[in-house]
Amino acid sequence: MTEQKATNVHWHDGDISRDDRARLLGQKGATLWFTGLSGSGKSTVAVALEARLFERGHLSYRLDGDNIRFGINKNLGFSAEDRTENIRRIGEIAKLFVDANVIALSSFISPYRADRDQVRALHDASDMPFIEVFVDCALEEAEKRDPKGLYKKARAGEIKNFTGIDDPYEAPEKPEIHLRTDQMTLEQEVDVIIDYLEQHGLLGA
Amino acid sequence: MTEQKATNVHWHDGDISRDDRARLLGQKGATLWFTGLSGSGKSTVAVALEARLFERGHLSYRLDGDNIRFGINKNLGFSAEDRTENIRRIGEIAKLFVDANVIALSSFISPYRADRDQVRALHDASDMPFIEVFVDCALEEAEKRDPKGLYKKARAGEIKNFTGIDDPYEAPEKPEIHLRTDQMTLEQEVDVIIDYLEQHGLLGA
Repeated sequence: MTEQKATNVHWHDGDISRDDRARLLGQKGATLWFTGLSGSGKSTVAVALEARLFERGHLSYRLDGDNIRFGINKNLGFSAEDRTENIRRIGEIAKLFVDANVIALSSFISPYRADRDQVRALHDASDMPFIEVFVDCALEEAEKRDPKGLYKKARAGEIKNFTGIDDPYEAPEKPEIHLRTDQMTLEQEVDVIIDYLEQHGLLGA
Repeated sequence: MTEQKATNVHWHDGDISRDDRARLLGQKGATLWFTGLSGSGKSTVAVALEARLFERGHLSYRLDGDNIRFGINKNLGFSAEDRTENIRRIGEIAKLFVDANVIALSSFISPYRADRDQVRALHDASDMPFIEVFVDCALEEAEKRDPKGLYKKARAGEIKNFTGIDDPYEAPEKPEIHLRTDQMTLEQEVDVIIDYLEQHGLLGA
């Protein structure tokens, strides 16, 4: 865990509580943490889920490489240390959204189990739902899709430390949700997630 | 501005737009950036505003020393460099909330004009409302209040680089909202802010 450097800070709750905000929105905040290989379908399912939730009147917000890597984490590269800090910050931001009772959809390869487990621990410590969604797709299939042409570059040695090629992907051992995107339709994937959220009382206040 | 280190990232919009989310929530996202001396009343007015917005069915979320310094910025101290990075990260997080159409209430001393102006520029670049709220209170009054006993410690030399004592506070030159907390009631302060939000069409979709 990251060391607490700042002193002269103390925690207090505001007058409006997380429960108050849940009643206002008619939903409970939760982090859905999509993890999987590049090209496995993380963003695709996150976008489809966002749309389905919206149709039902629920507010979700996607955190992804686009709005994070160009924003708060633009001063991080791809060293092991920076990758860990990248995931830590995303986990902390997701927690803020959960506290606001927005459904946070985090969509990053996040290949290391230890990094994901740290984010889970951060949520557990604040009694916030953390739902690990393993977006599972065979490497061959992900490489065949190669939507951004990154596997090709990695195979050509133009990108180093690429997950699945010359850097490991550590699959979740006990994800809350396991999607086999090479065997399921997108609609089925979204159905599975919606069912999970309903069964856990997250789509009501 | 911070250098972009990460490559292999590109920006795309999701299917659900910021406007869609605004219609869902019946409000537009905006950052209210409260700045002022320690003890000037930043958190007090932010908490009161949050409650007033809530009563009217609006979702806001407070970013403050408590949930930021204990969370995403726990690896930052109080050096000049760390203070700047602290404010930069908060600005980026506020932007994410604005994009989600939540009203972000940022409550930090944020003593340096350049840091605040950078956050303003980040918002401007994404066409997001940035409302600087100068929580103005005479140093003598703030020091008399001293709710956390910090001025006493700073005067005793137990805290170094304390804003207003041995570190400067650079007052906003053209804040969108100027609150004289030593001359206004809390209710008046909240009224002024609500009026501003209404006049700028932010409390409707």
